[in-house]
Amino acid sequence: MSKFLKEPTIPIEIIGSETVAALLRKMGRTGFQGRSLSSAAEVWKEMLKEGSFVFMGLAGAMVPAGMRRLVALLIERRYIDCLVSTGANLFHDIHESLGFHHYLGSPEVDDVELRKERVDRIYDVFASDVEFLKTDRYINSFTRTLSFSRPYSTREYFFLLGQHLAQDAKEDGIVATAAKAGIPIYCPAVGDSSVAIAISGFPETRSFVFDVSKDVYELAQMVISAQATGVVYVGGGTPKNFIQQAEVTPVVMGKSVPGHRYAVQIIVDAPHWGGLSGCPFEEAKSWGKIAADATKVTVYADATIALPILVTGLVQMMGKTERRGPAIRLDISGKDLEIGQ
Amino acid sequence: MSKFLKEPTIPIEIIGSETVAALLRKMGRTGFQGRSLSSAAEVWKEMLKEGSFVFMGLAGAMVPAGMRRLVALLIERRYIDCLVSTGANLFHDIHESLGFHHYLGSPEVDDVELRKERVDRIYDVFASDVEFLKTDRYINSFTRTLSFSRPYSTREYFFLLGQHLAQDAKEDGIVATAAKAGIPIYCPAVGDSSVAIAISGFPETRSFVFDVSKDVYELAQMVISAQATGVVYVGGGTPKNFIQQAEVTPVVMGKSVPGHRYAVQIIVDAPHWGGLSGCPFEEAKSWGKIAADATKVTVYADATIALPILVTGLVQMMGKTERRGPAIRLDISGKDLEIGQ
Amino acid sequence: MSKFLKEPTIPIEIIGSETVAALLRKMGRTGFQGRSLSSAAEVWKEMLKEGSFVFMGLAGAMVPAGMRRLVALLIERRYIDCLVSTGANLFHDIHESLGFHHYLGSPEVDDVELRKERVDRIYDVFASDVEFLKTDRYINSFTRTLSFSRPYSTREYFFLLGQHLAQDAKEDGIVATAAKAGIPIYCPAVGDSSVAIAISGFPETRSFVFDVSKDVYELAQMVISAQATGVVYVGGGTPKNFIQQAEVTPVVMGKSVPGHRYAVQIIVDAPHWGGLSGCPFEEAKSWGKIAADATKVTVYADATIALPILVTGLVQMMGKTERRGPAIRLDISGKDLEIGQ
Amino acid sequence: MSKFLKEPTIPIEIIGSETVAALLRKMGRTGFQGRSLSSAAEVWKEMLKEGSFVFMGLAGAMVPAGMRRLVALLIERRYIDCLVSTGANLFHDIHESLGFHHYLGSPEVDDVELRKERVDRIYDVFASDVEFLKTDRYINSFTRTLSFSRPYSTREYFFLLGQHLAQDAKEDGIVATAAKAGIPIYCPAVGDSSVAIAISGFPETRSFVFDVSKDVYELAQMVISAQATGVVYVGGGTPKNFIQQAEVTPVVMGKSVPGHRYAVQIIVDAPHWGGLSGCPFEEAKSWGKIAADATKVTVYADATIALPILVTGLVQMMGKTERRGPAIRLDISGKDLEIGQ
Repeated sequence: MSKFLKEPTIPIEIIGSETVAALLRKMGRTGFQGRSLSSAAEVWKEMLKEGSFVFMGLAGAMVPAGMRRLVALLIERRYIDCLVSTGANLFHDIHESLGFHHYLGSPEVDDVELRKERVDRIYDVFASDVEFLKTDRYINSFTRTLSFSRPYSTREYFFLLGQHLAQDAKEDGIVATAAKAGIPIYCPAVGDSSVAIAISGFPETRSFVFDVSKDVYELAQMVISAQATGVVYVGGGTPKNFIQQAEVTPVVMGKSVPGHRYAVQIIVDAPHWGGLSGCPFEEAKSWGKIAADATKVTVYADATIALPILVTGLVQMMGKTERRGPAIRLDISGKDLEIGQ
Repeated sequence: MSKFLKEPTIPIEIIGSETVAALLRKMGRTGFQGRSLSSAAEVWKEMLKEGSFVFMGLAGAMVPAGMRRLVALLIERRYIDCLVSTGANLFHDIHESLGFHHYLGSPEVDDVELRKERVDRIYDVFASDVEFLKTDRYINSFTRTLSFSRPYSTREYFFLLGQHLAQDAKEDGIVATAAKAGIPIYCPAVGDSSVAIAISGFPETRSFVFDVSKDVYELAQMVISAQATGVVYVGGGTPKNFIQQAEVTPVVMGKSVPGHRYAVQIIVDAPHWGGLSGCPFEEAKSWGKIAADATKVTVYADATIALPILVTGLVQMMGKTERRGPAIRLDISGKDLEIGQ
Repeated sequence: MSKFLKEPTIPIEIIGSETVAALLRKMGRTGFQGRSLSSAAEVWKEMLKEGSFVFMGLAGAMVPAGMRRLVALLIERRYIDCLVSTGANLFHDIHESLGFHHYLGSPEVDDVELRKERVDRIYDVFASDVEFLKTDRYINSFTRTLSFSRPYSTREYFFLLGQHLAQDAKEDGIVATAAKAGIPIYCPAVGDSSVAIAISGFPETRSFVFDVSKDVYELAQMVISAQATGVVYVGGGTPKNFIQQAEVTPVVMGKSVPGHRYAVQIIVDAPHWGGLSGCPFEEAKSWGKIAADATKVTVYADATIALPILVTGLVQMMGKTERRGPAIRLDISGKDLEIGQ
Repeated sequence: MSKFLKEPTIPIEIIGSETVAALLRKMGRTGFQGRSLSSAAEVWKEMLKEGSFVFMGLAGAMVPAGMRRLVALLIERRYIDCLVSTGANLFHDIHESLGFHHYLGSPEVDDVELRKERVDRIYDVFASDVEFLKTDRYINSFTRTLSFSRPYSTREYFFLLGQHLAQDAKEDGIVATAAKAGIPIYCPAVGDSSVAIAISGFPETRSFVFDVSKDVYELAQMVISAQATGVVYVGGGTPKNFIQQAEVTPVVMGKSVPGHRYAVQIIVDAPHWGGLSGCPFEEAKSWGKIAADATKVTVYADATIALPILVTGLVQMMGKTERRGPAIRLDISGKDLEIGQ
């Protein structure tokens, strides 16, 4: 028999009492994306066991789709060390923290009628435009407490907002939990979100300034300091690119970095469109963004399916095992990010 | 609040001891395809409870990807009443029944080198070309036991092949289990498969004839006789279209049929390419293939992720509950299909 | 500079009087699928110039989407030598040949209302269910002229139907043009189409039998006889698989064949779902279906965009150049396919 | 006949001397995405004729794929009035303006070998990592000419950079042409790009600050002032979302705006993933981002195919016709955007 024919696939046997982890393990002996999803749990587990510093990129409307408590759990359990998110997910998280909701809806509906009722649609999820305005005002009101004479990194901004929110939140989500846990949140496209609308839309806060270049600098410092990094991308967009480019900035600075050592991505974009969202980790190796010998897996799936299964499976697999902490510790509370050992 | 804002989504809380069914239930209060997958379990459960006659369409390389025992379970538990499959899935099922294997492989490999080693690749699954030839010969040898003076429906052919195989099988899969359980298998594109190659490739069997039009007639009879039908499509292709068109043939015959009453599909094709594989159930309503008031859900996902979760969840949800049998009983053992009450 | 950095891309300059061929040539110096589409024209041109025998696979609702005269042109100009199609495309072609139409529609419509008006929807195309029944009857009436005491290959059936239709057609399309030109049409999943419905739906024709295994045999004979073969796949499905497997049947017969020498495909399926429709030509090399050194290109695009551009560009590029004929000539008019030099 | 069956599709007839515009017109009577692409030309033409203010969103690696001169043409001919782009496209445009190149490559290559040669891959396009560093330095050197005591909107930054570049450019592209033409460029995720790396990577420029909230304010002012707006989205990402949200900021400001009046998008993302990139214009109506009665079309296609055809067709259709200018004129040269009539 050929050297390529060593390990038979094993048809899935369902016994009827499977935990999610048990099913995931069986899927590891099948093919296609089922096997990829199983591998994703293994790779994530390995990056935790090996003590790498884990970045998560979070794109797509994950919070309206019910993923905020799941991401909060990842932060609490320290399954991630740094979160990079779209502004929308952070805005929607704040919205739900304040006690507002997203609602079960349907894509088969008359959108003009929704408009008349001030209902915003995100595929099969609805939300109240009027309630969104309240969250706009909350964010605006928080922003007024900041200094207008100096710019803020998005990390500093969301840390302070998280502390503020923790006092008001009906239920902690991503932003409040991260502030409590000392996990930094970056939002590279903050201007492209309701957070920026909530700031620019009111004359009182119009002179508030984000320093997005500072974010770039801070991520580069983390990558330089950490001995090994891992990445988990939920969707593509700016969060994925921002974490990928964190391996490039050090090079411009004249520092040598090895590329991310562990890599998991859950995406629906295909490589053949040429965009960064669908970019496979192989391509990223040519840039040095991913290490030549990285342990990596791409799962082609909607994150609202893959993420609950993956995280539930991971939690079940890790059990009470403490992860081995990364080589660096962050103090995110100040104007400048402090990186310790 | 608007009438559109009644049911809040509920962010998933992971407790760490979830069964698959428990997680699926939580996903039912989220959004996007996670919710769709949860709904799929509900719709399938309902079609079983309501005693509808359930057709499954099986496309894509599901057997190489480890799904044969899962489909066999659906047949054994009578969660489906009739299977329509590509020829490839049936061929690969016979292959594994005979004790041959598919193997864990990788898409990142040199295919010319595989060719040299007679290894066939199906994305990340490998198989032995030499072993496939043995299965070809097995099928050929079975076919020689049949009459060459009359054509066979694919239902009759695969029933007889299943009986034959049950004696030789190292592990029962789809074809053998279906023969034992009396569940008919149809293969509308049998010519487009290794089964037909195994027949046409040898002079001794070249005069053997399939009667694919008879298949069409038999499916129409089932639809006319059953009081309510449900469909579960894994992928698109000929299996989906064949089951869909079973609602059209009766119309040509001058009979009125209501369209499938329950409908679940797991697909990766999008509606906007205009093909039947990606066709949403709404579009099918215009043709009368799906009932105007059908209970239906489309899950956009790779079946190797969705199917194990869906079926495990369904088994856990059904528990020891017997499904309510459909209004009709089939005798699939003869030249003509017999439909009883 | 690296050996990988030899040929710069050239940004497209639009001058305003471009023919399609001129634009396609410019796209050949860009990236992504624009370049692939340009390459597809080059590869197709080369397979014609080199005298290979060209198979076309035609899947998807190409005729409702206005592609029948374009495919007829390919047949007339002999840009293809053998057509393998879904039954639906052939049925819809016959439908339009008889003077019926498909209609400009929209996907944003109430399908239940369409149903009430007996209007069938194919994404953004509408058709009359009542008119379809007339085409059903036409096909049925033709079938009655055939012998019921022996089976027909789909090649023989569609040749005879094409001759019959040529007398009645208001405008020649695929089926009538192919019969006139002596180009064979195969329909491996004929059972999965309205053609089979039109036969099975009426008692008078219920004993008519297609011999789909004979189709398999005939295609194998072509591949064995032709010195070099080329393939053009529009979509995946059974047409693509059927032409691919024509390189496998000879192996079962004990004959050595080299794999298709030239290969173009226009698809929307991605490789990572593991299905045959999205299977890249690299994977096909492991099976020997595509030659190890084949000239090949995959275009990821909707065929209703890619095909008109590709074929118009090809016609403009070929100009009055006669293609070099393939090494074999077919006589498709008899019960058995005759292959000459 | 039903009211739904009024306009037959017309099968495409190829005559062999078609211009791109002529072919596009024929595609307007077909189905699926071919028809959508034809409609896109019509909608864009209409938005120009009606004097609306046209925003273009540009995502995906369009410049490496050869689209910079095409976008420059759109700016020169004033087929767009405001460009919102990813930072990558602007960086790559500057790179080529300086005389560097992207190169024809292939996705079937060993990326680790590319890495060794300092070659970066973008699907089938290659670039020199060493040359990229030179462009980094050029951008850095320009940035040093700016004030570090106040933040810059990305509009102001790219205008000044464009002026600077126009003096050095070997061939004008997007950034230089826009500066000359007085067309504003916004880059909402500038931090997520090599532009920000080129700033943060060097200590001398680390205190330079972008004011992305100011961008939000400026776009809102345009939308409020323009009587009617049109949008053309190439891909999704931040450019699309940023232009969409420009209809939301005014609402927060207490101003009523009608939603974009004309809308074209070329995307590959599907609606069912729930992300903004694949969001259909119908969904956008619920938010008021798109007018309830907007003229709109979505083309599902790779932009490297769709854009050259669309723009060539548009240029051919417009001929020497001057577009009717929008109701507003912009002065983009100062710290604050000036909007005149």
